[in-house]
Amino acid sequence: MPRYKLTIEYAGTRYSGWQVQKNARTVAGELERAVADVTGERPQELYGSGRTDAGVHALAQVAHLDLRAAPDPRLLARRLNDALPHDIVVAGCDRVRHTFHARHSALGRSYLYQVARRKTAFAKPFVWWVKDPLDVEAMRRAAVVLTGFHDFRSFADTDPGESSTTVALESLEVVEAGALLLVRVAGSHFLWKMVRRLVGVLVAVGKGELGDGDVKAMLEQPSRLPAQLTAPASGLFLERVRYAGDPLETPVRPAVLA
Amino acid sequence: MPRYKLTIEYAGTRYSGWQVQKNARTVAGELERAVADVTGERPQELYGSGRTDAGVHALAQVAHLDLRAAPDPRLLARRLNDALPHDIVVAGCDRVRHTFHARHSALGRSYLYQVARRKTAFAKPFVWWVKDPLDVEAMRRAAVVLTGFHDFRSFADTDPGESSTTVALESLEVVEAGALLLVRVAGSHFLWKMVRRLVGVLVAVGKGELGDGDVKAMLEQPSRLPAQLTAPASGLFLERVRYAGDPLETPVRPAVLA
Repeated sequence: MPRYKLTIEYAGTRYSGWQVQKNARTVAGELERAVADVTGERPQELYGSGRTDAGVHALAQVAHLDLRAAPDPRLLARRLNDALPHDIVVAGCDRVRHTFHARHSALGRSYLYQVARRKTAFAKPFVWWVKDPLDVEAMRRAAVVLTGFHDFRSFADTDPGESSTTVALESLEVVEAGALLLVRVAGSHFLWKMVRRLVGVLVAVGKGELGDGDVKAMLEQPSRLPAQLTAPASGLFLERVRYAGDPLETPVRPAVLA
Repeated sequence: MPRYKLTIEYAGTRYSGWQVQKNARTVAGELERAVADVTGERPQELYGSGRTDAGVHALAQVAHLDLRAAPDPRLLARRLNDALPHDIVVAGCDRVRHTFHARHSALGRSYLYQVARRKTAFAKPFVWWVKDPLDVEAMRRAAVVLTGFHDFRSFADTDPGESSTTVALESLEVVEAGALLLVRVAGSHFLWKMVRRLVGVLVAVGKGELGDGDVKAMLEQPSRLPAQLTAPASGLFLERVRYAGDPLETPVRPAVLA
């Protein structure tokens, strides 16, 4: 059966996350339904690169599936978009080898987080509005402390599927873009809720509530602080999943204007 | 009583337009309520530069009002923003002379219309998604035909308050910005629904359904076609209201990304 790689953009606001669930509307659930409508085949399984939580968005989630009918990829994308709700878009559709696996073949992932520094009429579902002034340089210094190979257990929610809490955080950038403050984080993988807790800690640093020493301490011993500071889902976007051959660096750009 | 000029950004999606109405939620209605909450004064009247219809947005609507309490403008803006719903933002607040009138002092107005050329997960409430390919050069030629001093009665909905249907259309620009096609129109004033009908006609030209000759004919004799082609409210933004001393030219930029 031919294998297809889908690149999917979605606004997570109306969904209980990516993963299929009984009795809840999810992004993967909507995709499986659309595939069944369009091809007449219920895909045996739609494999995503990873989950996103309720309310979290994606600029380019990646999934793969096998389809007996072997439809033309462009036609398949168009038909899926007609069958999908307005807030889920198939932005790319390619036939790929059977060695390609959305999750296992992924070399790295990046997330974008949008903090709005003023009230904004249009971007509410896609930002976290922080009223207090933020010391961006202090946030950048804390980001340097967090970058690298660390035990991030203070930043992880309990996940029975995760055996280790040690993660190589490749980069953590803080970029000003008009009324938005963008935080982008890249690494091979992330622990559950880790990105939102990194952002929550950085914002607390920006407010002057935490210093570099507090951040170092969170990496050295278990702390409940990051959990208490978890940034809201609305500002978070799965930005990119990187596979062999994809470009390494991309510019940090807002997902929506504010 | 001191006079204040408010510059207001709003997403029109949840409102029955700008103008206060009984039994309907409107932007001016929310503002008057917020002013009363914050100052304890019911403003005698909140004068807008002009109405916007249900579902139409504004990047910078302008209104004025007089307040006995003479609050500090920055403090007033902050308190109003706390009291207003998330989709209405006071972006500017200044004390002005009594000779300033939001409507009568306005020298010109511009509107921005956003056509999305691909399905977009995030921008749905702020665009009109047109699936068909559009001939942008043909749209630009038609825009030239429409620019200038013409009788736009074919483009106007019946408005008892309007004595003449002759309008000087100063500029009509068609600009490509990623997946968006932006149409910006500027002039001293516009007739009711005129902007949405101009955009509807331009898009029909872009699809190849109308030619320059058809557009010329609409200016020369009454036609029902523009009314049938009225573009949806979702894509329309009141972009700017220009007063004496304001800059003439501003770049055409998207209101939201797509």
